[in-house]
Amino acid sequence: MSHSSSLLENAVDQLASLPGIGRRTAMRLALDLLRREPQEVARFAEAIRRMRDEVRYCEVCCNISDEPRCAICRDPHRDASLICVVEDIRDVIAIENTRQFKGLYHVLGGVISPMDGIGPDDLHTAELMERVAQGDVREAVLALGGTLEGDTTGFYLNRRLSEAAVLVTTIARGISVGSDLDQADEVTLGRSIADRKPYEQSLKR
Amino acid sequence: MSHSSSLLENAVDQLASLPGIGRRTAMRLALDLLRREPQEVARFAEAIRRMRDEVRYCEVCCNISDEPRCAICRDPHRDASLICVVEDIRDVIAIENTRQFKGLYHVLGGVISPMDGIGPDDLHTAELMERVAQGDVREAVLALGGTLEGDTTGFYLNRRLSEAAVLVTTIARGISVGSDLDQADEVTLGRSIADRKPYEQSLKR
Repeated sequence: MSHSSSLLENAVDQLASLPGIGRRTAMRLALDLLRREPQEVARFAEAIRRMRDEVRYCEVCCNISDEPRCAICRDPHRDASLICVVEDIRDVIAIENTRQFKGLYHVLGGVISPMDGIGPDDLHTAELMERVAQGDVREAVLALGGTLEGDTTGFYLNRRLSEAAVLVTTIARGISVGSDLDQADEVTLGRSIADRKPYEQSLKR
Repeated sequence: MSHSSSLLENAVDQLASLPGIGRRTAMRLALDLLRREPQEVARFAEAIRRMRDEVRYCEVCCNISDEPRCAICRDPHRDASLICVVEDIRDVIAIENTRQFKGLYHVLGGVISPMDGIGPDDLHTAELMERVAQGDVREAVLALGGTLEGDTTGFYLNRRLSEAAVLVTTIARGISVGSDLDQADEVTLGRSIADRKPYEQSLKR
């Protein structure tokens, strides 16, 4: 795909570097930006540059935060002895939206992935173990994705956290609420049978 | 979707303003940018800002260009009496990739769309009529999308260009090469029968 402007080509290259954005889509996005007012595009670029330059991470849970400590960690009504360990901030948002979790979080910033050269030291595991070492953590809920990398990370963290005498739990895997059994994959369906629970208990929320 | 950083929220808002990018995707893109080096993100933002600030349009065909006149218009081997009228630069790229067209282009910068408040004066139609008024244009090939807006634009341009004694043609509509008849929509199939041509002629490239 060649065209006559290196300025456009440059912008398309940059947009196409984003995950899931191919060159065709990048061209469409660039043309949309070209149709806007220059000040509007300057605000667009500035918002992205500022986010990266000025972003801070909560000194407790490594969540993204504008303050030294994030709003969740500052909330006195939350249970500081219960920590939900997640991969990234999207998981925090998803769990917060359920309104079912009243503890704090710990954001790893990724999962262990030997294929991509990401080991435990590339994640915020040291910060997690430091929180645990301070002695207030009773339970750590692992809420990691059901991938090979998620499982590897869970395996590693379970070992480290158990050594530190923390109760390690993991979110339930099973059939989605409202979905048909024959739509579920075999592994999930198998796990949902192995992990069956008393009927009475399933009626509680 | 709420989170604890207004910097992140701002960047997500801006990314979600792009066409076809929802808030979930915008969050994924923002997190990807957050994982990069600050200088890399600064380059990203700068490429977009510069594109919009410094972009120029070819003084002849309104194509995007770094020079006053674009590479296609500067090429002495191209037929300046034959102009292909297109909606935007993506169409120029698509047609150039076929290597079948040896004339010049005219980029309208959009199509007439009363619903969106876009009339002929919002497009580069005045520049097109000016090129025609200079007397060198023999034929204008309308290569517009097969939408209602494309048809409206074609109808308008045919009237204006015919008044100026230019031969107006339009690209052929028909069944895609290599595709099955039963996959085609009825309008296209109907048009391909109405526009049938001698078999011998179809063998030529």
